[in-house]
Amino acid sequence: MINFENSEQGDSMNINKNFLDLKESYLFSLIGRKVNEYKAQNPDVEIIRLGIGDVTLPLVPAVVEAMGRAVLEMGNAETFRGYGEEQGYSFLRHAVCGYYAKKGVELSENEVFISDGAKSDLGNILDIFDTDNSVLIPDPVYPVYVDTNIMAGRKITFLNGNAENGFLPLPDPGEVYDIVYICSPNNPTGAVYTKAQLKVWIDWAIKNDAVILFDSAYEAYIQDSDLPTSIYQVDGAKQCAIEFCSLSKTAGFTGVRCGYTIVPLELVRNGVSLNKLWLRRQTTKFNGVSYIVQRGAEAVFTEEGLKQVKENIKYYLDNARIITETLAELGIWFTGGKNSPYIWLKCPDGMSSWEFFDMLLKEYGLVGTPGSGFGANGEGFFRLTAFGNRDNVLKAMDRIRKMRL
Amino acid sequence: MINFENSEQGDSMNINKNFLDLKESYLFSLIGRKVNEYKAQNPDVEIIRLGIGDVTLPLVPAVVEAMGRAVLEMGNAETFRGYGEEQGYSFLRHAVCGYYAKKGVELSENEVFISDGAKSDLGNILDIFDTDNSVLIPDPVYPVYVDTNIMAGRKITFLNGNAENGFLPLPDPGEVYDIVYICSPNNPTGAVYTKAQLKVWIDWAIKNDAVILFDSAYEAYIQDSDLPTSIYQVDGAKQCAIEFCSLSKTAGFTGVRCGYTIVPLELVRNGVSLNKLWLRRQTTKFNGVSYIVQRGAEAVFTEEGLKQVKENIKYYLDNARIITETLAELGIWFTGGKNSPYIWLKCPDGMSSWEFFDMLLKEYGLVGTPGSGFGANGEGFFRLTAFGNRDNVLKAMDRIRKMRL
Repeated sequence: MINFENSEQGDSMNINKNFLDLKESYLFSLIGRKVNEYKAQNPDVEIIRLGIGDVTLPLVPAVVEAMGRAVLEMGNAETFRGYGEEQGYSFLRHAVCGYYAKKGVELSENEVFISDGAKSDLGNILDIFDTDNSVLIPDPVYPVYVDTNIMAGRKITFLNGNAENGFLPLPDPGEVYDIVYICSPNNPTGAVYTKAQLKVWIDWAIKNDAVILFDSAYEAYIQDSDLPTSIYQVDGAKQCAIEFCSLSKTAGFTGVRCGYTIVPLELVRNGVSLNKLWLRRQTTKFNGVSYIVQRGAEAVFTEEGLKQVKENIKYYLDNARIITETLAELGIWFTGGKNSPYIWLKCPDGMSSWEFFDMLLKEYGLVGTPGSGFGANGEGFFRLTAFGNRDNVLKAMDRIRKMRL
Repeated sequence: MINFENSEQGDSMNINKNFLDLKESYLFSLIGRKVNEYKAQNPDVEIIRLGIGDVTLPLVPAVVEAMGRAVLEMGNAETFRGYGEEQGYSFLRHAVCGYYAKKGVELSENEVFISDGAKSDLGNILDIFDTDNSVLIPDPVYPVYVDTNIMAGRKITFLNGNAENGFLPLPDPGEVYDIVYICSPNNPTGAVYTKAQLKVWIDWAIKNDAVILFDSAYEAYIQDSDLPTSIYQVDGAKQCAIEFCSLSKTAGFTGVRCGYTIVPLELVRNGVSLNKLWLRRQTTKFNGVSYIVQRGAEAVFTEEGLKQVKENIKYYLDNARIITETLAELGIWFTGGKNSPYIWLKCPDGMSSWEFFDMLLKEYGLVGTPGSGFGANGEGFFRLTAFGNRDNVLKAMDRIRKMRL
């Protein structure tokens, strides 16, 4: 998309040249092209998509009702609201604190920042850090961590996730980095760190003065009560970690847009509170989330709302179980799918990610996501997601069972 | 808020030290403190606020209906929507293009980026420019332009707005800067550039390879048909200008959050399309605006919606007229208020901004905004806004007429 050929250094106006170091992501456009070609040649085959990274169930009634009420309030002079509270409405930050209290994590409302989604905050948080900081990013991973740091010109080191470490790499005690990303449950692998593993990361970060950017966007999918749904469930995390979460996958908010970021008051670097720095960044470069959306988000955290979204999560996790049971039958190695909507499998017969993609499409009419699109260590792996329709998942598994291995 | 005293340079993790150069904005907290003190001493006086920078009229019916429908769609499996189109829904970008067509400006849909408000995009746009670029910012001005550039460590030069140039400064032909901000109608002064004046800016920018960041958040208040409501109404602007607009003041969206940014396809620097750079920035660090909000925004641009929001704008402009007529009666110099919701006046009797603030509060129970809060050139000036309730505006003017000048 970006034509870099004619770019040249001048004395005056310059673009941010770091953008020229970004790789184009051809992943989803290549998938689209291959699917369209196949469709044109096989108009009668019903293609089933198991690669979709977006929710499909509608919003739950509690959220719909709350947002409907908020819309009406905004049309009434007595109840209309203009600019909201800078960090997000207190009613929503209070609800988030209540949600964390149930996890055993005590937060104050001024540690909670309401956002329009984890993606925005995961990118924008970098504003508060020096561009000379070194960054450690697991591979395979959500590509946004990499691209946002390239844009700022930071030095990136990749940390190898692989089948041997269950795609849950731990730090090398001898190596020092300033910023490290952890995504648990992981996108794309679905792997979830234990409390003991997170403790290793926290101890390493405190020792090295590093900051952990903890992406917990899929925490609501964790069923195993021993696994941490927040990094703050592990001692020491408030001294070294910022947590990013979203209602996108928790409550089907991908099109509604609401998330929250936790910056603990005790998180200090260079003698400066990162909470205060982030507040300054957000009050200067952001103007809050729609009142209507914040009322919808508040409803997620009510007793009724949580009950309803848990039913949707159960639906997706049942899809995941159907998929993983089929993979187990076929003897295909996989991780994820139990505490995560993602299933990460090793392509059979030593196939590359794209070879397996082509085979699934051409022989079974199935579409997934090649693991190589998530980093070098994703080569030879493949991502399936549980966000589809049940009938389609069952049909897809019937087809996969016929796979000649 | 930010304690910088203990900050120190280390070998490893560092915060973005540019934040330490930000000045704390005490403006609104000091206003609040003074008002509260006065209230405590004068519990019987009804204080009237003429400094409010937020809309007060509720959303118009067309918007309420559209958002109500969208909420219901999101609760229905057949009509639910997940992630939206990356630049914003085509239906809304199409509506924005239609709005510009009526201004005589032809845009393609891929030049329009839907945002959660002009403030976010005005800050985030800087990601695509080199931090070594020099920046020219008019003074007095919306403080966000200054703070966002300080955060990135850019060199800022201020351009003097004053009563002599009607707070509409023009470039010095001999001086070169890479990025220049223009806000027209201006916040805080309410002054509006003519087409001829904008042409001077455009010619200067093209000659010097500069980029104009044009903030048109108050364009809907322009009544004089000769004045430009978009910089693209002036020849050459597509080669040098990015335009930021918002529905906050156009349609009372301060709490709903929706705006749009225009990056022309022909705007190229270093051989690179700024449209493509901004698309890459936004698809990496932003995930779009709520579907519900985008449907509300679309409704603003319908025939019915435009008619309804124009009635609200007329209400505010009638407030402005009532205020400026009173100032004229009293012989107080002012600008704005005719094509803008802001009235910018010279404090009488050589008073400083804060002296006039104190007098208005203590003698008349009125609250406005000291001009010195918007930059050095704002000293001795004062901002009133037209966003209040009519009865309060009339009452306030009755009080002001008694002013002993």
